This record gives sequence, structure tokens and C-alpha cells, in this order.
Amino acid sequence: MNDDYATLQLTEDGLLRNFISIRGLPKSILEQILDTAASFVDVGGRDIKNVPLLRGKTVVNLFFEPSTRTRSTFELAAKRLSADVLNIDIARSATSKGESLMDMLRNLEAMASDMFVVRHADSGAPHYIARHATPNVAIINAGDGRHAHPTQAMLDMYTIRHYKGGFEGLTVAIVGDILHSRVARSQIYALRTLGAKEIRVVGPKTLIPTAIESMGVNVFTHLEEGIKDADVIIALRLQKERMDSALLPSESEFFDQYGLTNERLKVAHPEAIVMHPGPINRGVEIASEVADGPRAVILHQVTFGIAVRMAVMSMSMGGREAERNAARRQQEAQHVR
Amino acid sequence: MNDDYATLQLTEDGLLRNFISIRGLPKSILEQILDTAASFVDVGGRDIKNVPLLRGKTVVNLFFEPSTRTRSTFELAAKRLSADVLNIDIARSATSKGESLMDMLRNLEAMASDMFVVRHADSGAPHYIARHATPNVAIINAGDGRHAHPTQAMLDMYTIRHYKGGFEGLTVAIVGDILHSRVARSQIYALRTLGAKEIRVVGPKTLIPTAIESMGVNVFTHLEEGIKDADVIIALRLQKERMDSALLPSESEFFDQYGLTNERLKVAHPEAIVMHPGPINRGVEIASEVADGPRAVILHQVTFGIAVRMAVMSMSMGGREAERNAARRQQEAQHVR
Amino acid sequence: MNDDYATLQLTEDGLLRNFISIRGLPKSILEQILDTAASFVDVGGRDIKNVPLLRGKTVVNLFFEPSTRTRSTFELAAKRLSADVLNIDIARSATSKGESLMDMLRNLEAMASDMFVVRHADSGAPHYIARHATPNVAIINAGDGRHAHPTQAMLDMYTIRHYKGGFEGLTVAIVGDILHSRVARSQIYALRTLGAKEIRVVGPKTLIPTAIESMGVNVFTHLEEGIKDADVIIALRLQKERMDSALLPSESEFFDQYGLTNERLKVAHPEAIVMHPGPINRGVEIASEVADGPRAVILHQVTFGIAVRMAVMSMSMGGREAERNAARRQQEAQHVR
Repeated sequence: MNDDYATLQLTEDGLLRNFISIRGLPKSILEQILDTAASFVDVGGRDIKNVPLLRGKTVVNLFFEPSTRTRSTFELAAKRLSADVLNIDIARSATSKGESLMDMLRNLEAMASDMFVVRHADSGAPHYIARHATPNVAIINAGDGRHAHPTQAMLDMYTIRHYKGGFEGLTVAIVGDILHSRVARSQIYALRTLGAKEIRVVGPKTLIPTAIESMGVNVFTHLEEGIKDADVIIALRLQKERMDSALLPSESEFFDQYGLTNERLKVAHPEAIVMHPGPINRGVEIASEVADGPRAVILHQVTFGIAVRMAVMSMSMGGREAERNAARRQQEAQHVR
Repeated sequence: MNDDYATLQLTEDGLLRNFISIRGLPKSILEQILDTAASFVDVGGRDIKNVPLLRGKTVVNLFFEPSTRTRSTFELAAKRLSADVLNIDIARSATSKGESLMDMLRNLEAMASDMFVVRHADSGAPHYIARHATPNVAIINAGDGRHAHPTQAMLDMYTIRHYKGGFEGLTVAIVGDILHSRVARSQIYALRTLGAKEIRVVGPKTLIPTAIESMGVNVFTHLEEGIKDADVIIALRLQKERMDSALLPSESEFFDQYGLTNERLKVAHPEAIVMHPGPINRGVEIASEVADGPRAVILHQVTFGIAVRMAVMSMSMGGREAERNAARRQQEAQHVR
Repeated sequence: MNDDYATLQLTEDGLLRNFISIRGLPKSILEQILDTAASFVDVGGRDIKNVPLLRGKTVVNLFFEPSTRTRSTFELAAKRLSADVLNIDIARSATSKGESLMDMLRNLEAMASDMFVVRHADSGAPHYIARHATPNVAIINAGDGRHAHPTQAMLDMYTIRHYKGGFEGLTVAIVGDILHSRVARSQIYALRTLGAKEIRVVGPKTLIPTAIESMGVNVFTHLEEGIKDADVIIALRLQKERMDSALLPSESEFFDQYGLTNERLKVAHPEAIVMHPGPINRGVEIASEVADGPRAVILHQVTFGIAVRMAVMSMSMGGREAERNAARRQQEAQHVR
């Protein structure tokens, strides 16, 4: 399976061609994403924020699950790369006419699309699409079910590296509903690959997957123990819409036990940063005093997120072009023979 | 009526100025659309797919009937021509505030729009709009009621010419629900104008308009007879949403009698191609073995569709500019006198 | 309050930085808007209607209240300035996930947005947003509750100046539902600032705010008296959706007493122009003979509206850049010390 993720995401020469999952990607690719994103962070501060890297390319935002927020970040990233963007909200589209998913994708492909940004409520959908799409369309996972949200994880990595200089020696605590979180899964893979010292997951037993220790993390059910001496604390969003009610503590119960407050953060490293993928639930995962306080880097995550998405998009487009050029050269060589 | 369609669609010098219906257009214009599209098919394969022909122009997609698929093809075509695109979904817009259609159109016109791409459930709506719009806005019909879908017909013609080299001597069979099909009507006009040898319509008696023979077609109610020796077979989509239930056979009944299978296609010309306007209903109009088989050119139709729409858009914009320039010269000449 | 509106909308050097309300803006700024718009009106007639003034800038249309029409004019204006545009329909977005308004805005801001175009059903919302947004985002009011619709007022001023040469000596009558009209409020401020001789409001007592005379207008409840010798007559839209039924006369009652007809307009100045913000209700505020007659300049208002919005957008962006540059210079000067 891991091999499959590698083959699917990398060209024969090891360039990014799809971005489906952190799993299967080597440290060098993750670092290349962070380095490429750094150049785009600078662009965001300029008077003219656009670069022509994807000029004349067609990016299709395929949202099978509505998310104005995530769609906006990808739309902006694509436009700043000068791509043409097509937004398709599948719930309201031709699938209602009884067309199969694959037929719809092949149609979009036939329109000479270059990239699909896929958001789907089912785990594995972007992977399935990438396996069945042609060589000309790069697939970017914008979040699938409980599986992965790799661009979110990479913007988190960017933020950590920005504030901590690197990953070596770091203790990172991920707090909240681990069970339903695609973000947590992607973060754990990224942190391991990039060499964080210790990864902790912190939350009520009912919201932590069984056997998660096999992913190389330490489990804590008590908040203060879990964030003790941590350099980075990532609060997850309580995904009410994804939970069976039986598992879910009330919001105030959750805050009482796992909500981040200034008082509780005293046990963390004195220079610990607090992150959150957003949108935040004030008074549920995080107190306003923390969200608006000096440790929080939540809005910087958003800024870095655009740059990371630009990086992933331009790198996978580069990989596709290299792939096409290689295929062309091979074909020409065969003609010569 | 035919004269009216000619006047409405062509400038005094015979250039395209609106694209409402195949009816009223001479063979030379249809051929010019195909030739212009050919140049854009090449563009679709390039690294940068955009051309600056409509730079600084405003294209408004006016969809009175939702169609993500058709809207996407026009949006992409316009963007590849470098136009600014405004999508207006009328169901959710100001008409709900009681504004009349013509007042809304005059408003969009006053915003210096250059082109309206109109989709409407009522036959004749784009024609009506073209008759009442000012000289500055080109009208493109993106499908109106049961009347016409001329860009679909032209992409079909492009596909036929691409695979068959031309129209002379060709036998083309259109299979399915002819009665409710705007596509079939447009195809018949185009095939006649371009000089196909024989045009056949094939389907259950209840789904074939009475007196359709007057359009110059031969009627078949038996599938194998209808596709015998045909060079081109076009399956129409079973438009369930457009039918009175009494006329409609069940899906399995329809497939039993008119569904395209490899077995049945044996009576067609050995090199016959199979087309479909999409989205396909697998197991209703067409078996998967045919849709995914070597005769099917359905996805190529989609690719050619973008190029044909780019051709129609750029040609009608060219016609409009020629018209404006001529008017200006005439005005200046009058001033001189 | 007036001071607050000035501070919020102007840089220290007196340049436009937000456009929230006519209130608080000096005559020189209003005239600069009209002069800048004049240059863009010319652009609208050119073959290429785009100018690169906002290239590489991100404009977010934040519509908390749906309005396809107003959104379209701002979207077109931004695209003609070469900006990247993001449309966010809030009713269907993340606020449903329980995110607070300010958190959502800070997120959009963190994506390096340059401008929010805000439409809101609540009076004061754009003002609130402008007070709490960072120095990097310009706020444009696209209509808030009953409070203001300043771009509409400025396009009306443009129209008046275009047809009347200026404001000195002019009598302007605003007819209809003054009580619920954000447009009327903004028009009154603009006409006073620009020096119109007399501003009249005309309508049934129930639809005229008490104490409106304090705004410097004369009140008329009889139509013919109100438009007698007027140079400009502005019919307001009967905002049915904004009224309590008790206040509302029936449509035919309203037309009987306040509807503009050719007969009634005989008492106005012989060269009086008739304006309406649209969409018009034919046979309610205005007879078709007037709406389609020679006095009506309603569609020209729409054309000028795009230019005025381009002017406001480019001026406020210019103000923001001047502000940033000044801040940078100050910072550098402090470093030198």
C-alpha cells in the first residue's frame, strides 16, 4: 500500500506528480514543498502577488463535499499561479443526471484539464481518482473522509519550521478528536518523516483510534500530561458533524477537560506555539485568551497555507510536464529505430 | 423564418454575428467553424492553452436552465480565449425580484458585455433575445428547449469530419428519442448543409416527430435496419426529465430494442464510429462494451467541443467588430458629406 | 460619528482607503471619484476593456445578502481592473460551521486579500468590519441594511453631472419609499456635499422617516408638487421585501399616487432626466412609457456604475498602498536613528 502511494505520487525520476497523501512521500519531497512554499510566502507580500507558473493551465476544483473555506484557498493559490480555475460543486451537477463518477471525470479530462483538486466525504476517493485518471491530470487531495488532508498537514509543517527552525528535538502534541481527524493522520505522517522527536496524541479515550501507537505516537488522555514540555500544541477542530453522538462529550465537558487555556499551557515549553486548522470553536477546543494570545500562530497558518498550496500545485504540474517530455523523447527514440 | 435566421446570424458581409441555430447558416460558415476549431484543437495540446483573441471582452453565461456540464465547456472555452467570464444562474437571480427578462438583459448589456451564452428550457429564447438585444452583444445558443443545440451539432460535425475525412457519401444514423432532442434537430440541419448522403433517424414511433421526413431524413423503427451499413451512429441521451411518462418505455425495454451493443453494431459499416452527446446512460442507450470500446469517439467529442465553442465565440466576436467598424466608417462618411 | 467616518475612510494624507459611506467624505474626494470614473467610461467603449491597475490583487466579494446584480457589477469592475476575484456567498459558507464573523474575516485577510466588497442586510456591518480589519484590506460597502449604498449614489451623481454639467442650481426630487432606502440616504449626502440647490423627498407620509428635514431636504407628499420644475427625478424601487405590510400601499395604489407617467412629468423641468437604481417595477414606480422614453437615463446609470466602481476600487487601493509606503518609510527612518 505504501509502495502504491509512492508510485502514484512520484514520477520515475522522483518528482511530485499527484499529492494524495503524506504517506509514501520521502523527506526530500516534503522539504522541497516547504522550500518552494517559502518563495511563494514572499510573493504574498508583494504588490503584485501573481506568478505565471500555471499560465494557460486549467485547474478544476472538484468539491464533492462543500467547503467554501478550503475551496477559496485552492482557488486563490491557483489564481496567483495564473491558472484558469473552474469550480464544480458536484452535489448540484450532472451526477444528478445519473452519470457515473468516472464518466464525469473522463469528460473533464477530455476538456484538457491539467489538475483536479478533489474534496470528498469518502476516504480514498482522490486515491481512486488518481489511479484511474490519465497521465495528463494531476490530482491534489483537498481532504477525503477520515483519511488525509495533506496540504493542511504541510502548511502545519511550514508553520512549525518557520517558528522552530526545524523538527529535530521537537515534541508535538495533537489535542482533541483524533478518531475523526484526517488532519491528525496527515500530521503524524509528516512529523515522523520530517524527524520530530516525539509525537503525542491527547484526547478522551473514545476519540482516539485503537492501536494508534503503531503509527509511532504516544497516547495521553490527560491534557496537562500530554502537553507537558511540548514545543508545539495543535488543537484539532471538534468535528461535530462527523461524530456519532454517543462518542461526543458535550462542548462544555470537552472544554473542561481538553480546552486550551493560558493556565493549562503553563506546563508546556515556555516558547510553545499553539496551532489550529480552523475554523476554531472558541470556548470548545480553545479559549479566546489563547486563540488571540501571543502563542497562537493560527492566522499565520492560513497565510502559509496559500503558499504551500501554490507549492504543491506548481511542483505536481512540473512533475507532469517532465513525465510528458520523457514519454515524448521515448516515443521519438522509438521512431528513429 | 429561415431568412430571419440568416439575417439574425450573419452580418451584411456574411460573417457570423450570432450563433442561434444551424438553420439559416450556409455551408461556408459551417466549414469555417470547423476549420477555425481545428486550430484551437492544437492549442489544447500545448503547454499554454490560452490565446488572447477575446482579451478584454466580457462573456456572460446566462443559464436559465442549470447545466454544470455545458456551462463548464463554455466557461473553459471563454477563458482559453482570455475573456472575462461572468456566470449568472438565473433561477437564483434578480428575476425573482420581479424584473422582466428584457430589463435584465438590457442591464447586462449596459455593463458593456460582449457576449451572452444562453441556455433556456424554452424553445426560441436565444432567438428572441438576439432579436431584441443591441448590436454590441453576440448571442450564442447553449441549448434551448426542444429547438436547437447548435454548438453540440458542430462538435459532432467536427468529430465526423475528423474521423471520416468529410461528409460526402456518408450514411449517418441518429438513434433514440428524436422527439425531445434539440441535438437531433441541429444535427440534421448540419448534416444536410454539409452534404451527408443519407440521414436516418431510428427509434420507437412514439419518440419520432410526425412529418420529420420533410426534414430530409429516413425513418426507421427497427434498430438493425436503421444502422445497417451506417458510417456514423449517434446515440442520443434518453432525456427522462423531458418526457411524458406515457411515451417513455422503461429503460430496460429501451435497451432491449435500441441499446447499442457490439452484437448489433455488426450490421454497421466495419469502420463505423459511435457518438453520444453525453452524459451517457450506460445500459440504456449504450452498453459499456460499446461506450468503452474502439468504435466510441465520445470523449474526443468533448475535446473537440471546447475547440468548436472557441471557434464560434471568436468568429461571432470578429463579426461584431467588423459590423461596428463598418457602422463607424459609414457614420464618418456621412459627417464628411 | 461623522469624524469617525472620515478617519475610517481617508488616509492621513486625505486619500480614499475605504468606501463605506458618503458621509464623512469631502467634496474633493467625491469629485475625484467622478473624474476617475470618467476615464473608465472611455475604457468600456474600447475593444479591450481591461486595465492593469489591480493586477495581482485579490478582491473578495463578501455577500451576506444575495444580490446577483450588484455582485455582477463589482465582479466585472474588479476583472476589468485585472484583479483576481473570489466570490463568497456567506449564507452557504463556513459561518454555518459556527465560526464567528471576525474569525472568518481574519482568515480571508490572512490569505493576503486586498479588498472586501461587503453586502449585508444589517446597517453598519461594513463600518464594523472596516473598524476591525487590518490596514491591508480596503473595505467597499456594496449596500448595508437601510444605511447606505454609496457606490449607487456615486453612479447617480456621475449620471447627473454627465447630463446636467454639474450640481449648482439643480433641483433633485427623490420619489418613493424613502424610509427603507439605503440609496436615498446616500444620495442625499452626496447631493448636499456636491452642492445641489434643492433636494426634495416625495412619497407617502408612512414611507418618509420622521425628522428627515434635519438632513437638509424638503418633504412632499404630493407627487406633482414634489417634482414641479425638478431637473432630476429619481424614482426609488419599492422594496417590498423590506417593508412591514402595514406601511405598504398596494402596488396599484402606489402607482396611482406616485407612479411616474408622461402626463405627470409635464410639471417637471422640460429637460428633466428620470433615474432609477433598478431593477425597475414597471407599472409600480414608473410607467413603461417613461422607463423606455427619452427622459429615462436608467441604462446609462448601469454603464456608469461599472466605471464608478472601478474608480472607487482603484482609488482605495491606491490609498492603501500610499499608507503602506508611508508606514514603511517611517519604520526605516526609525531604524536609521
